[in-house]
Amino acid sequence: MEPPRAVLFDAYGTLFDVYSIGRLAEQLFPGQGAALSVLWRDKQIEYTRLVTTSNDGAPYRPFWDLTRASLRWACKRLALDLTPEREERLMDQYRHLTAFEDSLDVLRSLKARGITTGILSNGDPPMLDSAIRSAGLAGLLDHVLSVDAVRKYKTHPAAYALGTRATGLDANRILFVSSNAWDALAATWYGYRTFWVNRQQLPFEELGTQPTATGSTLRDVLGLFEPAS
Amino acid sequence: MEPPRAVLFDAYGTLFDVYSIGRLAEQLFPGQGAALSVLWRDKQIEYTRLVTTSNDGAPYRPFWDLTRASLRWACKRLALDLTPEREERLMDQYRHLTAFEDSLDVLRSLKARGITTGILSNGDPPMLDSAIRSAGLAGLLDHVLSVDAVRKYKTHPAAYALGTRATGLDANRILFVSSNAWDALAATWYGYRTFWVNRQQLPFEELGTQPTATGSTLRDVLGLFEPAS
Repeated sequence: MEPPRAVLFDAYGTLFDVYSIGRLAEQLFPGQGAALSVLWRDKQIEYTRLVTTSNDGAPYRPFWDLTRASLRWACKRLALDLTPEREERLMDQYRHLTAFEDSLDVLRSLKARGITTGILSNGDPPMLDSAIRSAGLAGLLDHVLSVDAVRKYKTHPAAYALGTRATGLDANRILFVSSNAWDALAATWYGYRTFWVNRQQLPFEELGTQPTATGSTLRDVLGLFEPAS
Repeated sequence: MEPPRAVLFDAYGTLFDVYSIGRLAEQLFPGQGAALSVLWRDKQIEYTRLVTTSNDGAPYRPFWDLTRASLRWACKRLALDLTPEREERLMDQYRHLTAFEDSLDVLRSLKARGITTGILSNGDPPMLDSAIRSAGLAGLLDHVLSVDAVRKYKTHPAAYALGTRATGLDANRILFVSSNAWDALAATWYGYRTFWVNRQQLPFEELGTQPTATGSTLRDVLGLFEPAS
């Protein structure tokens, strides 16, 4: 099979390291940072699914708003005193992420091979813009695709369709890369070739479909391509 | 506002007590029962959302199959040795649940008032049938509605539409009762009057919509109705 012509990456947790969010949570709420980070992240994803699946009655809200709502829920759940100042500091962390150390190298290597690159993310455009600048990825991405354009979050097919539409390529000519098993799974269902970045040695989803490939770092994506000439 | 003409209940965790599942999990995997129960339940719900939202590419699967898949994932995640015998014992527990102690009284009281009663559940018909018999609720339910009929799980509007179709009532004449905040929320979005049974004093979802009413036990549902004459 020919190598993919384009590589689209999930953003948060895939290209962008969200570790700093947990570190700040621990600093603000000593002993509760890990619990808060997990609850916040899980609820954030749950909210994207609720507003997408119930879309008839539920108004769509940008990822920034759902991120804030889920932070408030998680703090209530853990009985943490989320002052307005703490809320702003935690939210602001989403604008100032670093890239995983291999993100830049991998994007540069793909560009050197003439491969189209991009992000396909739940994040809304202002969130993505500031994170891309903060992480130093500007100029390495041909496409920055936000589901905000279709007001449906992943794993809705309309969200994944943004990638085929923007690149003009069939889904099977595109490699979709995500550190989220559910994202890699649903992208596979959609028709993409997929790469699951499994940094934490987790089990994949048990729904009968496997990603096209799996690796433990972003760098392993390059193994699917010929060396740059 | 007139009292509702019908009351539809969520099943697992609302009418049926799933505590026995956690107890068996602890018996089979000492020290890990609570962690397994939480991961299993969360993944079970996640899988209903993934196959519903991604429905174009993902084959629908009955709740029984998703329950088994999520159990397997949760055991892999916790590195627990799920032998075929343990798997069957845990799955079988779903067929032999007890009702919460107030479930029968509340259903009888509603029937005495001439109110239509029913279940509207993600469970597939064989699962629901055996649980209803096990819990002694047969004869107290006018409708047993499974989302299997529309192959879309809650919170898809097609799932909630089963209730209005079966009763012939407008959604605002029906009270939908769930112990799951997300279920009470999405049913409210759909147009039902809703009652959130918050047995564990959890915060409600932070998405700007509140259930019509909240209580700490099923019995509080009766407060919305006139005493039986």
